[in-house]
Amino acid sequence: MARELHLNLFINGRGHHETAWRHPASTTKALSDLSYYRDLALAAEAAKLDSIFFADQLALGDELAHAARGELEPVTLLGALAALTSQIGLIATASTTYNEPYNLARQFASLDHLSGGRIGWNIVTSWAPGAAVNFGQEAQVGIDQRYARAHDFVEAVSKLWDSWARDAIVDDRDSGTYARPDRVRRAAHRGSHFSVAGALNIPRSPQGRPVFVQAGASKDGRAFAARYAEAIFTAHLTKDSAIEFYADIKTQARALGRGPDQIVILPGLSAAIGSTEAEAKRVWEELNELSHPSVGLARLSSRFGGHDFSHLKLDDVLSVEDFPDPSQVQASRSRAQSITALVARERPTLRGLLHSLAGARGHFTATGTPEQIADIIEDWFVSGAADGFNVMPPILPTQFDIFASEVVPLLRRRGLFRSEYGDGTLRDRLGLDPVQSQFDPAEPVKRSA
Amino acid sequence: MARELHLNLFINGRGHHETAWRHPASTTKALSDLSYYRDLALAAEAAKLDSIFFADQLALGDELAHAARGELEPVTLLGALAALTSQIGLIATASTTYNEPYNLARQFASLDHLSGGRIGWNIVTSWAPGAAVNFGQEAQVGIDQRYARAHDFVEAVSKLWDSWARDAIVDDRDSGTYARPDRVRRAAHRGSHFSVAGALNIPRSPQGRPVFVQAGASKDGRAFAARYAEAIFTAHLTKDSAIEFYADIKTQARALGRGPDQIVILPGLSAAIGSTEAEAKRVWEELNELSHPSVGLARLSSRFGGHDFSHLKLDDVLSVEDFPDPSQVQASRSRAQSITALVARERPTLRGLLHSLAGARGHFTATGTPEQIADIIEDWFVSGAADGFNVMPPILPTQFDIFASEVVPLLRRRGLFRSEYGDGTLRDRLGLDPVQSQFDPAEPVKRSA
Repeated sequence: MARELHLNLFINGRGHHETAWRHPASTTKALSDLSYYRDLALAAEAAKLDSIFFADQLALGDELAHAARGELEPVTLLGALAALTSQIGLIATASTTYNEPYNLARQFASLDHLSGGRIGWNIVTSWAPGAAVNFGQEAQVGIDQRYARAHDFVEAVSKLWDSWARDAIVDDRDSGTYARPDRVRRAAHRGSHFSVAGALNIPRSPQGRPVFVQAGASKDGRAFAARYAEAIFTAHLTKDSAIEFYADIKTQARALGRGPDQIVILPGLSAAIGSTEAEAKRVWEELNELSHPSVGLARLSSRFGGHDFSHLKLDDVLSVEDFPDPSQVQASRSRAQSITALVARERPTLRGLLHSLAGARGHFTATGTPEQIADIIEDWFVSGAADGFNVMPPILPTQFDIFASEVVPLLRRRGLFRSEYGDGTLRDRLGLDPVQSQFDPAEPVKRSA
Repeated sequence: MARELHLNLFINGRGHHETAWRHPASTTKALSDLSYYRDLALAAEAAKLDSIFFADQLALGDELAHAARGELEPVTLLGALAALTSQIGLIATASTTYNEPYNLARQFASLDHLSGGRIGWNIVTSWAPGAAVNFGQEAQVGIDQRYARAHDFVEAVSKLWDSWARDAIVDDRDSGTYARPDRVRRAAHRGSHFSVAGALNIPRSPQGRPVFVQAGASKDGRAFAARYAEAIFTAHLTKDSAIEFYADIKTQARALGRGPDQIVILPGLSAAIGSTEAEAKRVWEELNELSHPSVGLARLSSRFGGHDFSHLKLDDVLSVEDFPDPSQVQASRSRAQSITALVARERPTLRGLLHSLAGARGHFTATGTPEQIADIIEDWFVSGAADGFNVMPPILPTQFDIFASEVVPLLRRRGLFRSEYGDGTLRDRLGLDPVQSQFDPAEPVKRSA
């Protein structure tokens, strides 16, 4: 079977550019309005995308005056969207640092039932420094500790999701047998951070468990992804960086005995699309012109663990000496590293750097015609940089509408993307093997396809 | 304005009788099937009920072989039902013992947005002894400690829900002002159990916060309810007990400076309804005949903190000496007390006791024609025993269908129950005052109606 391109729509505010909320082409609906997300989900489903995705933060960001904040909580939102859609995959972010395994396992199992097997879990350790103080902690714990807890967390929830056999419920009214107790087992997890007796109190869900999605890109993040992730959202400012990441993850996965096709790598792509290149560039310039330096500075600061950049002027030419050592950053270390690499490479002004980051926060940005964007997608896909893309329209919904109506048909014509959904769960669509069950150890691990 | 009767549908398994799952009149759908809950919610909405409600446990119950277990998780289920209904109130249970305030505050604020102001939170401290070991604890903490934590929890989430003013979001594209930072404040909660910096990262929801619902009936539970609850689900085996409870709560509330109409008291009512009294009784007998003693014994044991009753025989006549002192029970103490009171009063056999509890787990049960059930409702309503009822059909959906099509019209004809929904939120429907905002201290606390 030919390799299949995978496309996920990343829904963020009124678009991924930080000024999208002000742009005349963005929605006028409130970010708390379900109908806005419903219409986007249905548009993505009509375009036959694999999935939609919501990020999450556990603290209110800074610069509220000039940045659009206050989106809905993703798990509850996915409950609503599960009821309003029928085919598209639904991926929500949830934190291993600020949750209990039993609660998270229940909510995602429930979502997987509600959606008929369309759920993914974007596993995060919560890099934002402001989260810790919302959970009774004086300060954020370091990356190493967050990942140690994340490993234990994923082991615990995996046991909970595997605590019911597929055939545990008999539901035999005549004999009065509802379930077979020997087909439900305690999780009995005793790890470094969590003790969970189990069993889960929700039967095995259609996918067995949600698809594991991950976006960490630090050394710890990559090792975690190679072990657990089945889909990866990843941020690269260059194709070369994406190729290096892709090869590294697949190599690490192989070393752990995993098939490289069992991790679908989806770099972010934030493209302004126009009927001419000039029109596309104009959209991007319009967005940049609406930007407010304090918003970009606050975001830059949070990427470097709260470092103070306020002494820099917008027209200063930057050098790496203006930044703290990214290897010491306890927040989003990989993003900090990619920013300092960009500074070393391009020596931008502060204004220039903020503009590059305003677009998609460190993800790849592009401007062009539908053909040019389709070319980028095909090029990365065939060059070993991507198995598909995390589509991050700079303006929503209009730039996604153009993507769906202009770029997707080109990808179909080139034989890269599906025209119809097949049967099956999100796992099936992503080409992932079925989840193993402790109750059926002999079952085939490989899909029959 | 005349007092209004309030009706909530409590959705539990295939009905509230523990054998409902086997009865030929119950649904054949799986308990993980969203369409089952959707149809019940829409039927309750068509009957103009105030709300529907889902209980919750944080552990898998015993006796899986003969009891229908494994329902969906309520918060995610409410997300789906918010999208599938438009008028009815939606109440989910969530625990103050095994959650973090910031997570719970976000999810319920999000649900309140998704539903347009129709959400209630049933605040529980989780009595089931099996929950603690799913959350890394060796054993359950006592009632006193659970309520101390619950107080602090409710204070913390209340501050989070009040951290945004109604008018915080300006969304002015021209000036580039998204929000007014002076209209968003940190929660700055430092309590006995929780420190939460805040602010919440979701704007103020339509109701300000969910309606506070409570069901604890121990001394601690009543004190908690008198302070915080705006609606109470309560279990009584006799009308006298309900009258005592009603008077006590309203008196305690008044002593705390709260208007007695600001707590809507809803005793549980599990009625088998037939076109004749004999037919109704036959339904109840059919249900009892399907029962399995081990299921009832396991439930009885869990109500007494895991006490072993296995030495008793089904035909033994019980006395209070067969039970541990209910005032020492650290689980559902009030339910334990009401069971020993019943034993002292009626001296049932073990079989007889299990049958009375099989119906609705300590709630009031009845059999009768629609007229007889309407009479009970009216009698309790006018006698100071109830402001309405928590409707707990023994078999779902059929016994609710009869309630909706036969009992509700009688209540309307008697001028007790609405024929149409008015405008407004769940709070408005329950006759509750608007939630005060720290940003608008001068606003009227009383509804203008």
